[in-house]
Amino acid sequence: MASSEIDALTQALARLPGLGPRSARRAVLHLLKKRETALGPLLRALGAVEERLATCAVCGNVDTNDPCSVCTDTRRDTRLLCVVEEVADLWALDRTRLFPGRFHVLGGRLSALEGVRPEDLAIDSLVGRLAAGGIDEVVLAMNATLEGQTTAHYLADRLERFPIRLTQLAHGLPVGGELDYLDEGTLAQALRARRPVA
Amino acid sequence: MASSEIDALTQALARLPGLGPRSARRAVLHLLKKRETALGPLLRALGAVEERLATCAVCGNVDTNDPCSVCTDTRRDTRLLCVVEEVADLWALDRTRLFPGRFHVLGGRLSALEGVRPEDLAIDSLVGRLAAGGIDEVVLAMNATLEGQTTAHYLADRLERFPIRLTQLAHGLPVGGELDYLDEGTLAQALRARRPVA
Repeated sequence: MASSEIDALTQALARLPGLGPRSARRAVLHLLKKRETALGPLLRALGAVEERLATCAVCGNVDTNDPCSVCTDTRRDTRLLCVVEEVADLWALDRTRLFPGRFHVLGGRLSALEGVRPEDLAIDSLVGRLAAGGIDEVVLAMNATLEGQTTAHYLADRLERFPIRLTQLAHGLPVGGELDYLDEGTLAQALRARRPVA
Repeated sequence: MASSEIDALTQALARLPGLGPRSARRAVLHLLKKRETALGPLLRALGAVEERLATCAVCGNVDTNDPCSVCTDTRRDTRLLCVVEEVADLWALDRTRLFPGRFHVLGGRLSALEGVRPEDLAIDSLVGRLAAGGIDEVVLAMNATLEGQTTAHYLADRLERFPIRLTQLAHGLPVGGELDYLDEGTLAQALRARRPVA
Protein backbone atom coordinates (compact mmCIF):
# COMPACT_ATOMS: atom_id res chain seq x y z
CA MET A 1 0.00 0.00 0.00
CA ALA A 2 2.57 2.55 1.13
CA SER A 3 5.72 3.32 -0.78
CA SER A 4 8.92 1.46 0.04
CA GLU A 5 10.33 4.53 1.79
CA ILE A 6 7.34 4.72 4.13
CA ASP A 7 7.53 0.96 4.73
CA ALA A 8 11.22 1.28 5.61
CA LEU A 9 10.47 4.07 8.08
CA THR A 10 7.66 2.06 9.69
CA GLN A 11 9.97 -0.93 10.08
CA ALA A 12 12.80 1.16 11.54
CA LEU A 13 10.42 2.65 14.11
CA ALA A 14 8.80 -0.71 14.89
CA ARG A 15 12.20 -2.04 15.97
CA LEU A 16 12.49 0.52 18.79
CA PRO A 17 11.78 -0.85 22.25
CA GLY A 18 8.25 -0.08 23.33
CA LEU A 19 6.96 0.26 19.77
CA GLY A 20 5.39 -2.49 17.69
CA PRO A 21 4.08 -2.58 14.12
CA ARG A 22 0.81 -0.95 15.11
CA SER A 23 2.21 1.96 17.11
CA ALA A 24 4.95 2.43 14.51
CA ARG A 25 2.26 2.91 11.86
CA ARG A 26 0.50 5.46 14.06
CA ALA A 27 3.79 7.25 14.62
CA VAL A 28 4.54 7.29 10.89
CA LEU A 29 1.09 8.71 10.10
CA HIS A 30 1.68 11.40 12.71
CA LEU A 31 5.08 12.22 11.18
CA LEU A 32 3.64 12.37 7.65
CA LYS A 33 0.81 14.64 8.74
CA LYS A 34 3.04 16.97 10.76
CA ARG A 35 5.96 17.37 8.43
CA GLU A 36 7.06 20.73 9.83
CA THR A 37 6.45 20.19 13.54
CA ALA A 38 7.25 16.47 13.96
CA LEU A 39 9.10 14.93 11.02
CA GLY A 40 11.52 17.84 10.53
CA PRO A 41 12.55 18.20 14.20
CA LEU A 42 12.97 14.43 14.64
CA LEU A 43 15.10 14.18 11.51
CA ARG A 44 17.32 17.08 12.60
CA ALA A 45 17.65 15.74 16.17
CA LEU A 46 18.61 12.27 14.91
CA GLY A 47 21.11 13.74 12.48
CA ALA A 48 22.75 15.89 15.15
CA VAL A 49 23.11 12.94 17.50
CA GLU A 50 24.33 10.56 14.78
CA GLU A 51 26.99 13.03 13.73
CA ARG A 52 28.47 13.52 17.18
CA LEU A 53 27.70 10.29 19.02
CA ALA A 54 30.61 9.05 21.11
CA THR A 55 31.37 6.82 24.06
CA CYS A 56 33.04 8.76 26.86
CA ALA A 57 36.64 7.55 27.19
CA VAL A 58 36.59 8.37 30.91
CA CYS A 59 33.35 6.86 32.22
CA GLY A 60 31.74 4.91 29.35
CA ASN A 61 28.63 7.11 29.09
CA VAL A 62 27.24 7.66 25.58
CA ASP A 63 26.98 11.30 24.68
CA THR A 64 27.58 13.74 21.87
CA ASN A 65 30.76 14.91 23.64
CA ASP A 66 33.88 12.96 24.68
CA PRO A 67 34.62 13.32 27.58
CA CYS A 68 30.88 13.39 28.21
CA SER A 69 28.71 16.18 29.65
CA VAL A 70 28.77 14.53 33.08
CA CYS A 71 32.56 14.15 33.26
CA THR A 72 33.17 17.72 32.12
CA ASP A 73 30.55 19.24 34.46
CA THR A 74 32.73 21.33 36.80
CA ARG A 75 29.97 21.60 39.43
CA ARG A 76 30.31 17.91 40.18
CA ASP A 77 32.19 16.51 43.15
CA THR A 78 35.18 14.67 41.68
CA ARG A 79 35.78 12.81 44.97
CA LEU A 80 32.55 10.83 44.54
CA LEU A 81 32.30 8.02 42.02
CA CYS A 82 29.25 5.86 41.31
CA VAL A 83 29.75 2.55 39.48
CA VAL A 84 26.83 1.29 37.37
CA GLU A 85 26.22 -1.63 35.06
CA GLU A 86 24.78 0.19 32.07
CA VAL A 87 24.41 3.66 30.59
CA ALA A 88 20.67 3.42 31.28
CA ASP A 89 21.47 3.10 35.01
CA LEU A 90 23.67 6.20 34.89
CA TRP A 91 20.84 8.16 33.31
CA ALA A 92 18.29 6.82 35.80
CA LEU A 93 20.42 7.78 38.81
CA ASP A 94 21.29 11.14 37.34
CA ARG A 95 17.64 11.98 36.83
CA THR A 96 17.16 11.87 40.61
CA ARG A 97 19.55 14.86 40.81
CA LEU A 98 20.62 13.49 44.18
CA PHE A 99 24.06 12.22 43.24
CA PRO A 100 26.53 15.10 42.90
CA GLY A 101 29.51 12.98 41.77
CA ARG A 102 30.63 11.27 38.59
CA PHE A 103 29.97 7.82 37.17
CA HIS A 104 31.70 4.76 35.82
CA VAL A 105 29.86 2.44 33.43
CA LEU A 106 30.96 -1.22 33.55
CA GLY A 107 29.14 -2.13 30.35
CA GLY A 108 27.40 -5.15 31.90
CA ARG A 109 27.55 -7.48 34.85
CA LEU A 110 29.50 -10.69 35.63
CA SER A 111 27.51 -13.67 34.42
CA ALA A 112 28.56 -17.30 34.33
CA LEU A 113 25.47 -18.05 32.26
CA GLU A 114 26.26 -15.50 29.57
CA GLY A 115 30.01 -16.00 29.85
CA VAL A 116 30.75 -12.44 30.97
CA ARG A 117 34.10 -12.35 32.82
CA PRO A 118 35.81 -9.47 34.64
CA GLU A 119 38.00 -8.70 31.63
CA ASP A 120 34.83 -8.14 29.54
CA LEU A 121 33.80 -5.23 31.78
CA ALA A 122 35.40 -1.81 32.23
CA ILE A 123 36.99 -2.82 35.53
CA ASP A 124 40.64 -2.13 34.70
CA SER A 125 39.76 1.42 33.77
CA LEU A 126 37.85 1.76 37.06
CA VAL A 127 40.91 0.58 38.99
CA GLY A 128 42.97 3.03 36.95
CA ARG A 129 40.71 5.94 37.90
CA LEU A 130 41.05 5.03 41.59
CA ALA A 131 44.84 4.53 41.30
CA ALA A 132 45.08 8.05 39.86
CA GLY A 133 43.78 9.26 43.24
CA GLY A 134 41.42 12.07 44.28
CA ILE A 135 38.44 9.79 44.91
CA ASP A 136 37.08 9.42 48.48
CA GLU A 137 33.97 7.33 48.00
CA VAL A 138 32.84 4.71 45.50
CA VAL A 139 29.13 3.85 45.39
CA LEU A 140 28.45 0.40 43.95
CA ALA A 141 25.08 0.87 42.26
CA MET A 142 24.56 -2.56 40.74
CA ASN A 143 21.11 -3.99 40.13
CA ALA A 144 19.60 -5.90 43.05
CA THR A 145 19.86 -9.12 41.03
CA LEU A 146 22.01 -12.14 41.66
CA GLU A 147 24.41 -11.14 38.90
CA GLY A 148 24.47 -7.50 39.95
CA GLN A 149 25.29 -8.41 43.52
CA THR A 150 27.95 -10.91 42.41
CA THR A 151 29.54 -8.11 40.41
CA ALA A 152 29.39 -5.79 43.44
CA HIS A 153 31.14 -8.40 45.62
CA TYR A 154 33.81 -8.89 43.01
CA LEU A 155 34.39 -5.15 42.75
CA ALA A 156 34.53 -4.79 46.52
CA ASP A 157 37.40 -7.33 46.52
CA ARG A 158 39.21 -5.63 43.68
CA LEU A 159 38.94 -2.17 45.25
CA GLU A 160 39.82 -3.25 48.79
CA ARG A 161 43.39 -1.96 48.60
CA PHE A 162 42.32 1.63 47.94
CA PRO A 163 41.83 3.99 50.92
CA ILE A 164 38.26 4.82 49.99
CA ARG A 165 34.77 4.56 51.48
CA LEU A 166 32.98 1.79 49.61
CA THR A 167 29.17 1.99 49.74
CA GLN A 168 26.21 0.40 48.00
CA LEU A 169 22.61 1.42 47.33
CA ALA A 170 20.15 0.63 50.10
CA HIS A 171 17.86 -2.35 49.52
CA GLY A 172 14.37 -2.42 50.97
CA LEU A 173 10.78 -1.44 50.24
CA PRO A 174 10.32 0.53 47.05
CA VAL A 175 8.38 3.78 47.48
CA GLY A 176 4.67 2.94 47.31
CA GLY A 177 5.44 -0.74 47.86
CA GLU A 178 2.81 -2.68 49.78
CA LEU A 179 4.13 -5.46 51.99
CA ASP A 180 1.44 -7.80 50.86
CA TYR A 181 2.59 -7.62 47.26
CA LEU A 182 6.37 -7.64 47.74
CA ASP A 183 8.52 -10.72 47.29
CA GLU A 184 10.13 -12.38 50.30
CA GLY A 185 13.62 -11.40 49.21
CA THR A 186 12.77 -7.71 49.34
CA LEU A 187 11.02 -8.07 52.69
CA ALA A 188 13.99 -9.99 54.10
CA GLN A 189 16.35 -7.21 52.95
CA ALA A 190 14.09 -4.55 54.41
CA LEU A 191 13.97 -6.35 57.75
CA ARG A 192 17.72 -6.97 57.91
CA ALA A 193 18.49 -3.35 57.03
CA ARG A 194 15.88 -1.90 59.39
CA ARG A 195 16.79 1.43 60.93
CA PRO A 196 15.82 3.28 64.12
CA VAL A 197 12.82 5.56 63.68
CA ALA A 198 14.15 9.10 63.41
CA MET B 1 22.69 14.98 32.34
CA ALA B 2 22.61 14.27 28.63
CA SER B 3 23.83 16.71 26.01
CA SER B 4 21.37 19.10 24.42
CA GLU B 5 21.39 17.04 21.21
CA ILE B 6 20.32 13.91 23.06
CA ASP B 7 17.70 15.88 24.97
CA ALA B 8 16.31 17.26 21.74
CA LEU B 9 16.09 13.74 20.27
CA THR B 10 14.35 12.43 23.38
CA GLN B 11 11.81 15.24 23.22
CA ALA B 12 11.17 14.75 19.51
CA LEU B 13 10.50 11.03 20.08
CA ALA B 14 8.39 11.66 23.18
CA ARG B 15 5.98 13.72 21.07
CA LEU B 16 5.09 10.75 18.86
CA PRO B 17 1.72 9.13 19.64
CA GLY B 18 2.16 6.06 21.82
CA LEU B 19 5.48 7.21 23.25
CA GLY B 20 5.98 9.17 26.47
CA PRO B 21 9.09 10.57 28.16
CA ARG B 22 9.99 7.20 29.63
CA SER B 23 9.67 5.11 26.50
CA ALA B 24 11.36 7.87 24.49
CA ARG B 25 14.39 7.63 26.79
CA ARG B 26 14.48 3.87 26.34
CA ALA B 27 14.26 4.30 22.58
CA VAL B 28 17.07 6.88 22.61
CA LEU B 29 19.32 4.58 24.64
CA HIS B 30 18.60 1.81 22.18
CA LEU B 31 19.46 4.10 19.26
CA LEU B 32 22.70 5.26 20.92
CA LYS B 33 23.79 1.71 21.61
CA LYS B 34 22.92 0.41 18.16
CA ARG B 35 24.31 3.16 16.01
CA GLU B 36 24.81 0.98 12.92
CA THR B 37 21.70 -1.19 13.12
CA ALA B 38 19.12 1.19 14.59
CA LEU B 39 20.15 4.85 14.49
CA GLY B 40 21.58 4.77 10.97
CA PRO B 41 18.63 3.00 9.32
CA LEU B 42 16.07 5.19 11.12
CA LEU B 43 17.92 8.35 10.11
CA ARG B 44 18.14 7.27 6.46
CA ALA B 45 14.49 6.16 6.39
CA LEU B 46 13.31 9.47 7.85
CA GLY B 47 15.48 11.43 5.45
CA ALA B 48 14.18 9.51 2.43
CA VAL B 49 10.57 10.09 3.48
CA GLU B 50 11.10 13.74 4.36
CA GLU B 51 12.68 14.43 0.99
CA ARG B 52 9.88 12.96 -1.09
CA LEU B 53 6.78 13.32 1.10
CA ALA B 54 3.73 14.44 -0.84
CA THR B 55 -0.05 14.46 -0.67
CA CYS B 56 -1.55 12.62 -3.63
CA ALA B 57 -3.34 15.15 -5.84
CA VAL B 58 -5.83 12.47 -6.93
CA CYS B 59 -6.94 10.77 -3.71
CA GLY B 60 -5.40 12.69 -0.78
CA ASN B 61 -3.21 9.80 0.45
CA VAL B 62 0.20 10.77 1.85
CA ASP B 63 3.04 9.01 0.11
CA THR B 64 6.49 9.55 -1.33
CA ASN B 65 4.99 9.63 -4.82
CA ASP B 66 2.35 11.91 -6.35
CA PRO B 67 0.09 10.39 -7.65
CA CYS B 68 0.49 7.89 -4.83
CA SER B 69 1.43 4.19 -5.01
CA VAL B 70 -2.24 3.20 -4.71
CA CYS B 71 -3.49 5.45 -7.52
CA THR B 72 -0.69 4.35 -9.88
CA ASP B 73 -1.09 0.63 -9.11
CA THR B 74 -2.28 -0.74 -12.47
CA ARG B 75 -3.58 -3.97 -10.89
CA ARG B 76 -6.35 -2.06 -9.14
CA ASP B 77 -9.90 -1.92 -10.36
CA THR B 78 -10.48 1.70 -11.39
CA ARG B 79 -14.25 1.22 -11.38
CA LEU B 80 -14.31 0.79 -7.59
CA LEU B 81 -13.83 3.79 -5.31
CA CYS B 82 -13.77 3.74 -1.50
CA VAL B 83 -14.31 7.03 0.34
CA VAL B 84 -12.67 7.36 3.77
CA GLU B 85 -12.36 10.10 6.36
CA GLU B 86 -8.60 9.98 6.98
CA VAL B 87 -5.38 8.60 5.52
CA ALA B 88 -5.18 6.22 8.49
CA ASP B 89 -8.51 4.69 7.40
CA LEU B 90 -7.18 4.18 3.87
CA TRP B 91 -4.16 2.35 5.26
CA ALA B 92 -6.29 0.24 7.61
CA LEU B 93 -8.64 -0.88 4.83
CA ASP B 94 -5.78 -1.51 2.43
CA ARG B 95 -4.07 -3.77 4.95
CA THR B 96 -7.03 -6.15 4.72
CA ARG B 97 -6.03 -6.69 1.03
CA LEU B 98 -9.75 -7.26 0.39
CA PHE B 99 -10.50 -4.04 -1.44
CA PRO B 100 -9.18 -4.13 -5.00
CA GLY B 101 -10.18 -0.55 -5.92
CA ARG B 102 -8.89 2.93 -5.26
CA PHE B 103 -9.56 5.41 -2.50
CA HIS B 104 -10.63 8.97 -1.84
CA VAL B 105 -9.60 10.69 1.40
CA LEU B 106 -12.01 13.38 2.62
CA GLY B 107 -9.58 14.76 5.18
CA GLY B 108 -12.07 14.65 8.06
CA ARG B 109 -15.76 14.39 8.75
CA LEU B 110 -18.64 16.90 8.91
CA SER B 111 -18.90 18.26 12.43
CA ALA B 112 -21.13 21.01 13.73
CA LEU B 113 -19.20 20.95 16.99
CA GLU B 114 -15.81 21.46 15.37
CA GLY B 115 -17.20 23.71 12.63
CA VAL B 116 -16.24 21.37 9.78
CA ARG B 117 -18.43 22.11 6.75
CA PRO B 118 -18.67 20.33 3.38
CA GLU B 119 -16.33 22.85 1.76
CA ASP B 120 -13.63 21.96 4.32
CA LEU B 121 -13.54 18.37 3.04
CA ALA B 122 -12.34 16.99 -0.30
CA ILE B 123 -15.91 16.56 -1.57
CA ASP B 124 -15.72 18.70 -4.71
CA SER B 125 -12.75 16.65 -5.90
CA LEU B 126 -14.73 13.46 -5.20
CA VAL B 127 -17.63 14.76 -7.28
CA GLY B 128 -15.08 15.66 -9.96
CA ARG B 129 -13.72 12.11 -10.05
CA LEU B 130 -17.23 10.71 -10.46
CA ALA B 131 -18.15 13.30 -13.10
CA ALA B 132 -15.10 12.18 -15.09
CA GLY B 133 -16.78 8.78 -15.38
CA GLY B 134 -15.48 5.22 -15.33
CA ILE B 135 -16.57 4.51 -11.74
CA ASP B 136 -19.29 1.92 -11.09
CA GLU B 137 -19.36 1.65 -7.31
CA VAL B 138 -18.59 4.01 -4.45
CA VAL B 139 -18.13 2.49 -0.99
CA LEU B 140 -18.78 4.97 1.81
CA ALA B 141 -16.36 3.78 4.51
CA MET B 142 -17.00 6.38 7.18
CA ASN B 143 -16.47 5.65 10.87
CA ALA B 144 -19.52 4.20 12.66
CA THR B 145 -19.81 7.43 14.66
CA LEU B 146 -22.53 10.08 14.59
CA GLU B 147 -20.31 12.42 12.60
CA GLY B 148 -19.10 9.69 10.29
CA GLN B 149 -22.66 8.63 9.50
CA THR B 150 -23.79 12.23 9.05
CA THR B 151 -21.00 12.62 6.53
CA ALA B 152 -22.06 9.42 4.75
CA HIS B 153 -25.66 10.67 4.51
CA TYR B 154 -24.50 14.00 3.13
CA LEU B 155 -22.30 12.26 0.54
CA ALA B 156 -25.16 9.94 -0.46
CA ASP B 157 -27.25 13.04 -1.26
CA ARG B 158 -24.46 14.71 -3.18
CA LEU B 159 -23.69 11.60 -5.25
CA GLU B 160 -27.33 10.69 -5.96
CA ARG B 161 -27.26 12.06 -9.50
CA PHE B 162 -24.48 9.72 -10.63
CA PRO B 163 -25.39 6.34 -12.17
CA ILE B 164 -23.35 4.36 -9.61
CA ARG B 165 -23.88 1.70 -6.97
CA LEU B 166 -23.54 3.41 -3.62
CA THR B 167 -22.64 1.07 -0.73
CA GLN B 168 -21.46 1.35 2.84
CA LEU B 169 -19.53 -0.88 5.22
CA ALA B 170 -21.58 -3.43 7.16
CA HIS B 171 -22.30 -2.61 10.80
CA GLY B 172 -22.64 -5.38 13.36
CA LEU B 173 -20.70 -7.55 15.74
CA PRO B 174 -16.95 -7.09 15.55
CA VAL B 175 -14.98 -10.32 15.13
CA GLY B 176 -14.50 -11.86 18.57
CA GLY B 177 -17.18 -9.59 20.01
CA GLU B 178 -19.23 -11.08 22.85
CA LEU B 179 -22.85 -10.02 22.98
CA ASP B 180 -22.70 -9.52 26.71
CA TYR B 181 -20.00 -6.87 26.36
CA LEU B 182 -21.25 -5.01 23.30
CA ASP B 183 -23.14 -1.73 23.47
CA GLU B 184 -26.82 -1.58 22.60
CA GLY B 185 -26.19 0.46 19.47
CA THR B 186 -24.02 -2.26 17.97
CA LEU B 187 -26.47 -4.98 18.96
CA ALA B 188 -29.36 -3.01 17.45
CA GLN B 189 -27.45 -2.64 14.16
CA ALA B 190 -26.56 -6.33 14.16
CA LEU B 191 -30.22 -7.27 14.66
CA ARG B 192 -31.56 -4.85 12.05
CA ALA B 193 -29.02 -6.05 9.48
CA ARG B 194 -29.49 -9.75 10.27
CA ARG B 195 -29.00 -12.09 7.32
CA PRO B 196 -30.28 -15.54 6.39
CA VAL B 197 -27.96 -18.33 7.52
CA ALA B 198 -26.07 -19.50 4.45
